[in-house]
Amino acid sequence: MITPLLGTSFIGYSRSTSTEICGHGIQPGSGTRLEPAYLAASADEVAQTMALAAAAFPVFSNLPGKTRATFLRSIAKEIESVVEDIVERGQLETALPEPRLRGETARTCGQLRMFADLIEEGSWVDARIEHAQPDRAPLPKPDLRSMLRPLGPVAVFCASNFPLAYSVAGGDSASALASGCPVIVIAHASHPGVAEIVASAVIRAARATGMPEGVFSVLYGGGRKVGQAVVQHPVTQAVGFTGSRAGGTALMESAAKRAQPIPVYAEMSSINPVVLLPDALDRGEEALAEAFFGSLTLGVGQFCTNPGLVFLPSDRGDTFLTRLQSRIEAAAPGTMLNAAICQAFADSTDAVAATPGVSTLARAQPGGPGQGSPAVFVTTVCDFLAHPELQHEMFGPATLIVRGSIEEITAALESMEGQLTASLHASEAELTAHSTLINALQQRAGRLIFNGFPTGVEVCSSMVHGGPFPSTSDGRSTSVGTMAIFRFTRAIAWQAFPDAALPLELQEANPLAIRRLVDGQPCA
Amino acid sequence: MITPLLGTSFIGYSRSTSTEICGHGIQPGSGTRLEPAYLAASADEVAQTMALAAAAFPVFSNLPGKTRATFLRSIAKEIESVVEDIVERGQLETALPEPRLRGETARTCGQLRMFADLIEEGSWVDARIEHAQPDRAPLPKPDLRSMLRPLGPVAVFCASNFPLAYSVAGGDSASALASGCPVIVIAHASHPGVAEIVASAVIRAARATGMPEGVFSVLYGGGRKVGQAVVQHPVTQAVGFTGSRAGGTALMESAAKRAQPIPVYAEMSSINPVVLLPDALDRGEEALAEAFFGSLTLGVGQFCTNPGLVFLPSDRGDTFLTRLQSRIEAAAPGTMLNAAICQAFADSTDAVAATPGVSTLARAQPGGPGQGSPAVFVTTVCDFLAHPELQHEMFGPATLIVRGSIEEITAALESMEGQLTASLHASEAELTAHSTLINALQQRAGRLIFNGFPTGVEVCSSMVHGGPFPSTSDGRSTSVGTMAIFRFTRAIAWQAFPDAALPLELQEANPLAIRRLVDGQPCA
Repeated sequence: MITPLLGTSFIGYSRSTSTEICGHGIQPGSGTRLEPAYLAASADEVAQTMALAAAAFPVFSNLPGKTRATFLRSIAKEIESVVEDIVERGQLETALPEPRLRGETARTCGQLRMFADLIEEGSWVDARIEHAQPDRAPLPKPDLRSMLRPLGPVAVFCASNFPLAYSVAGGDSASALASGCPVIVIAHASHPGVAEIVASAVIRAARATGMPEGVFSVLYGGGRKVGQAVVQHPVTQAVGFTGSRAGGTALMESAAKRAQPIPVYAEMSSINPVVLLPDALDRGEEALAEAFFGSLTLGVGQFCTNPGLVFLPSDRGDTFLTRLQSRIEAAAPGTMLNAAICQAFADSTDAVAATPGVSTLARAQPGGPGQGSPAVFVTTVCDFLAHPELQHEMFGPATLIVRGSIEEITAALESMEGQLTASLHASEAELTAHSTLINALQQRAGRLIFNGFPTGVEVCSSMVHGGPFPSTSDGRSTSVGTMAIFRFTRAIAWQAFPDAALPLELQEANPLAIRRLVDGQPCA
Repeated sequence: MITPLLGTSFIGYSRSTSTEICGHGIQPGSGTRLEPAYLAASADEVAQTMALAAAAFPVFSNLPGKTRATFLRSIAKEIESVVEDIVERGQLETALPEPRLRGETARTCGQLRMFADLIEEGSWVDARIEHAQPDRAPLPKPDLRSMLRPLGPVAVFCASNFPLAYSVAGGDSASALASGCPVIVIAHASHPGVAEIVASAVIRAARATGMPEGVFSVLYGGGRKVGQAVVQHPVTQAVGFTGSRAGGTALMESAAKRAQPIPVYAEMSSINPVVLLPDALDRGEEALAEAFFGSLTLGVGQFCTNPGLVFLPSDRGDTFLTRLQSRIEAAAPGTMLNAAICQAFADSTDAVAATPGVSTLARAQPGGPGQGSPAVFVTTVCDFLAHPELQHEMFGPATLIVRGSIEEITAALESMEGQLTASLHASEAELTAHSTLINALQQRAGRLIFNGFPTGVEVCSSMVHGGPFPSTSDGRSTSVGTMAIFRFTRAIAWQAFPDAALPLELQEANPLAIRRLVDGQPCA
């Protein structure tokens, strides 16, 4: 370990002086307690953090996009400079393998640079100009110009399953900072050391690029106390969260009860239905089973896009099931991210196994402490509809296969809650023939996948990683890709302002040379 | 009256057969009950309406934009054909003068045609295409295409103060229909006859242009029973509302408690601060007082953009006050929209007048029954800060003038809730000198106005008629202008879909010739 860990929160550019221990990093599986102890930010320190964020907001939000881009690029560089620390500590805290930690670090830095590119170019603000028409009858038209502006300080909760890409400097933080919002991160108890390493990198970047203190803070103390204090604080203007349905809905309720309710972007739970139609099965059931097995067991199934539900026609798919069964039975258990996730996986798979009408197709040998074993269950559409609890997520490498006629499968889809993704394996002819089924998928999902599986979320301009409740709290948003920046913005209009007092994006001469809508027409 | 009024709800293309009277139109002032009696939609009819809307959604949302545009234009034409009925009935029900009713009808039709233009052109869907890179290392990149799609059936509550432009076929309905969402309107008890005339026009247009039944329904029965049933119904996917803070927050709570929480776009209450700085006063206090008086009393003050709060430096503005006082004292009372609004105006002005530290600068002579009289109150920043209830809206022609130093005014602004608008009368030099004050305005408002007053909301591509809570429930949105369409949409991504199965907007050849983002670059 190159960087010594202190175990304290980052209150802007200062470190917490609290002495209340809130936990240690724990090595999954062995349960070994890792040093140092982590100390909860005090109530005074939370207040100080929020005051710093409030003071930073007008400064940070008025910096040119190019300057904020320099900050984001500097964060990426600082994170890359501590990748060995991240990999060493990350393996201890999360049991994720080295290639995954390196890959996730690369993705995190890639996301930061993607947002840097976006705000450096600048057109994302959707600048709109309508010129005055002083002689218009019956009333003159005023000059009116609008663009997207940041909401204000954003609370970001780290995710257990993405210690880099959806934690301290992950997608939520990157998109919020890119938009011009200061960020207050609430660290996850599952990987406090990785959080501290990354937080130090962000703070170094903030200092080096001259950002106002308070643009970024990281608090330890857990979601219940410190997290709620931040969400309830009047300075906070939005919340980003990736985690459980219980955690996300608690945040939604809490934010709705504030004197000023604020938006919560919680990515919560999704079982990501996969529909296998006859033509796809005809192309080769064994290959389909192999590909599905790969998606199901990737990362010990600990992805929000894990395929937890498969619809299979009753009269097909026996070879698919046989091959899947043999792969599952031979599968190795994997160490899960933490003891709570492991226990929840055991509980949720036991609950599904015990549901009337559900049979266990295959279950891998049980593993050691902290490990999860792949499992596949089978039921009918009839039983699926009779037991709505079968829609609950089993977070881990388990899936439920639901069999019925295509009409029954369509009816089951129409009964389902919102999903991040829906995958359809079919022929082009089947796409045309089953428009009701496809409409049902489209109404319930953020991303539709043809002849593929949902794991693997491309970070790009067209990604939608969001979907109707309960897959997220706000189905109008995405947490992955450039459109994620829109979550932390609102449009503001300036009427009849002098040119020099307008933001550069709206000045008549278009000094930033961005794309704008001028009197309703696109102009570069 | 050319069209006979039936007093019944529109359940898709059928009329309600309910017999439960829920009210009559009432002539403001006289209190005369107007025929016919209006009948509340029954619970069965609400269920039938929602089933029709659910069935219409996949059909309507998949129609080409050009076809939906034809529907919107046809609505405008049908409304224009009954403008005489609207004017006749509207004067009886709302006491609004004929020119206002004609003007609002024109605005309503203008809005419908604006959205028709927008969806006919088609680029509003923000189509984004990223091509596959099958050879990319370490992982291939899939083909991924996204665009905005409609959320589903939308509940629209009519506004008391805009019987045309924010009622049956007003901005909420027009933007929801434009996006591809079926609309269920809940009529306002204040103008049931106008609602029926306009609803008939919409239904004629829907039939004439071959829209699916259920694309549009209008229900009588009031917000409490019928409205809550629609908001709670699982088919409903969003809510549009313009009205009181109590009504809007009740809808927010109700929508948040659903099994699937849904977005609520409630435009609620705003006191629209006007800041007068010394240089602006130096330009002529009398002219400023005249212009302010005009904005304050326009439409008997019954606009959400009415200027209910003025910040005036302590050491200036005596001439402004003297002129305003004389204009107010000589002002005529005006008949308000309904008895409840009139009573609320009396109560809220009495409450302000009775607040410690508040003096009454001027109050016009009281009018007859149903009339509201202009009033101006004065206080200090110190008292304003001591009595947060002075931020409550007085809906009508009343304003509170708050005096203090510029530093005190800035502090007062920093204590304020969210607003639709903030107006600043100043010189360019003052804009530069008082950046803290301007940041405070910007953080709290949707539209900033320089040397003007907030009444008069231009309907165009750059209008933002929205602002932080409590001015609206969702400060990320606008209810006026083309951006209002975004409220009823979410992005959906299609991964690896065959070209022919994609929406036209996303097909490789760009058959609709819309602007798209292709591999991150804008392409026409």
